[in-house]
Amino acid sequence: MSDRELTPQQLAEACAESMFARDTASQNLGMRIESVAPGRAVLTMTVREDMVQGHGNCHGGFIFALADSAFAFACNTYDEATVGSGCSIDYLGPGQLGDLLTATAEERSRRGRTGIYDITVRNQHGQEVALFRGRSYKIRGTVRRLEETAAESQA
Amino acid sequence: MSDRELTPQQLAEACAESMFARDTASQNLGMRIESVAPGRAVLTMTVREDMVQGHGNCHGGFIFALADSAFAFACNTYDEATVGSGCSIDYLGPGQLGDLLTATAEERSRRGRTGIYDITVRNQHGQEVALFRGRSYKIRGTVRRLEETAAESQA
Amino acid sequence: MSDRELTPQQLAEACAESMFARDTASQNLGMRIESVAPGRAVLTMTVREDMVQGHGNCHGGFIFALADSAFAFACNTYDEATVGSGCSIDYLGPGQLGDLLTATAEERSRRGRTGIYDITVRNQHGQEVALFRGRSYKIRGTVRRLEETAAESQA
Amino acid sequence: MSDRELTPQQLAEACAESMFARDTASQNLGMRIESVAPGRAVLTMTVREDMVQGHGNCHGGFIFALADSAFAFACNTYDEATVGSGCSIDYLGPGQLGDLLTATAEERSRRGRTGIYDITVRNQHGQEVALFRGRSYKIRGTVRRLEETAAESQA
Repeated sequence: MSDRELTPQQLAEACAESMFARDTASQNLGMRIESVAPGRAVLTMTVREDMVQGHGNCHGGFIFALADSAFAFACNTYDEATVGSGCSIDYLGPGQLGDLLTATAEERSRRGRTGIYDITVRNQHGQEVALFRGRSYKIRGTVRRLEETAAESQA
Repeated sequence: MSDRELTPQQLAEACAESMFARDTASQNLGMRIESVAPGRAVLTMTVREDMVQGHGNCHGGFIFALADSAFAFACNTYDEATVGSGCSIDYLGPGQLGDLLTATAEERSRRGRTGIYDITVRNQHGQEVALFRGRSYKIRGTVRRLEETAAESQA
Repeated sequence: MSDRELTPQQLAEACAESMFARDTASQNLGMRIESVAPGRAVLTMTVREDMVQGHGNCHGGFIFALADSAFAFACNTYDEATVGSGCSIDYLGPGQLGDLLTATAEERSRRGRTGIYDITVRNQHGQEVALFRGRSYKIRGTVRRLEETAAESQA
Repeated sequence: MSDRELTPQQLAEACAESMFARDTASQNLGMRIESVAPGRAVLTMTVREDMVQGHGNCHGGFIFALADSAFAFACNTYDEATVGSGCSIDYLGPGQLGDLLTATAEERSRRGRTGIYDITVRNQHGQEVALFRGRSYKIRGTVRRLEETAAESQA
C-alpha cells in the first residue's frame, strides 16, 4: 500500500510501529505505546526495581527517558525524520517503585523545520510527575526509511 | 576518619566514590569519573554500538545521561544529599560511534537549598556536543548515608 | 474585612488589584488584567508602534514582558509574596502591529515554596505566539503588604 | 567603504552601531554597549528607581531585558539578520538600586541558521545576578539594511 492511500492516522501508526521496532532502548525499559496520532503519542512505563534509588524513588533519568521517547514518537508521526534539538524538564513529584507512569506528548507548534512539543508525565493516580518541553528539527529522510530499504532490497 | 578531618577535596572524592558504587546505571553505560572537586565533576563515556541510531549518531538520550550524571556528581560533592529539580539541554553536534565524550560540570550558583550547574559535553576533538544546565535542590540526608548506615550496623 | 472572610477567588482578585496598582511597568505597556483566579491570570496587551521592529513585528522583549506579568499575577493569587526564580520562552509566531495579545497563565504545580506555571500567548485569531514556563519561589511577606502598612499608618 | 574591506571586528562594530541607533527600548533603559566582537557583546545598565520593586530589588524583567539585548547584539555581529527563537533565564541574586549590571554574551555554537549564546549578568562586585541562554535563528536580510536603504535613497 502506498503512502497516498494512508490516512494521517494510519501514517502516524505506521511510523510509530517502525520506530519502536528498532528502538531497543525504549523496549528494554519496558515502555509501551498506548496510542499515537498526528503530532501526539502516549507511552507508559512501570517503575522497576532497577530504576529506583535508595529511597525507593525513580531516578530522574528514567522519567526523562520516558518523556523523551514520547516526544520522539509524537514528532515523527508524519514520516519525516525528525530529531530533538533541545528540551527542558521540570520534576514535580516522585515516581515510586511499581508506579505506572504515563507520558502524554502533544504538539504545540510545527512550522518549517521546527516544532515544539509538551509532554506531561503522570502516575496512575493522575498526579503530575514531570513536565517536559521538546524542540524538534526536521532532517532529511523518512521515518520508515530502514524498512523501505529492506523491502526494496528483497524485491 | 571523621568528616572534620577531611579536606573539601577529600570529601568531594569520598562522595563521588560512594555515589558511583551504587549507581549501576552510570556504570552500565561505561561512564568513568575522571575527576571531582567541590562543585565540579568530569565524566567520560565512549559511544558504543548500542547507543547509536540508524545513521551512526549517538542517541540524544545517552548524551543526556552522561551530562545528567556529571551534574549529579558535581552537586553532591559536599556530602549533602542533593537532587535535580529540573534541567535543559541543547544538542549542538552529533556524538558518533567510538567517540570519547567528556562531560565537564561546573557550579554556577549555590545558595540556600538550590544550585545551578553548567555541563558541557565535548568529543575527543574538543568539539562541543551538548550544553546542559541543571537546577539542584538539597534534600535531607547525606550522600554517604548508605555506607555509614552499613558501617554502623556492622559495629 | 479580614482575610478570613475572603473566598479564595476574592483573595486572588484583591492580590491582583494591589499588585497592579503599583506595577507601573505593566501599566505603561498598556496591559490589562482580564481575569484572575487562584493560580490563574489572563492579561491582554495591544502591540503598539513603539513595540515593533523594522518589519512591523513585535519585539520579543514585549511578548516576554506580557507573559512574565501574567506569570507574576498568577503565582501571587494566594497573598503569599512570590517571585520568579527562572523561566523559559519559545517564540512560535510573530505579534504584529495592532494585534491584541492575550497571555493565559495556569498553575501546573505548587508544592512547598516552589511552583511551575505555563503561560500561552495568543493573538486575536487564537494563534499561539509564544509559550512561557515559569518557576516561582515563595519569599517572606504578603502580596498586599504595602497597602496594609499604609492603612495601618493612617489608623 | 564596502563590506569586503571590513575586518570581522569592524563589521561587528558597524552592526552594533546600526542596531543600537534604532533600538530605542535599550536606549531608554540606559543600556550602553561596552564592547562587541564577532559572536560577543558586553552591555551595561544601572538599576534605576523606576526598575525596583517594593524591597529595592530590580524587577526581573529589566535584568531579562539587559541579557536579551546583549544576546541580540552578540548574534547580530555578522551582518546577517538574526532573531531569538527562544531562551531561558535563571535568577541567581538580586540587582539592587544603583547597581551597575554588566551582561556578557558569548557564542557557544553557530551552525547553519541556528546558534546558542550564553549571557551572564553580574553586578559591580562581580557577583552573578542571572544566567541566560538564548537560541538564535537567522532570517533573511542584513543587520545594516535600514541604513543602507536610507543611503541608497539619498544617492
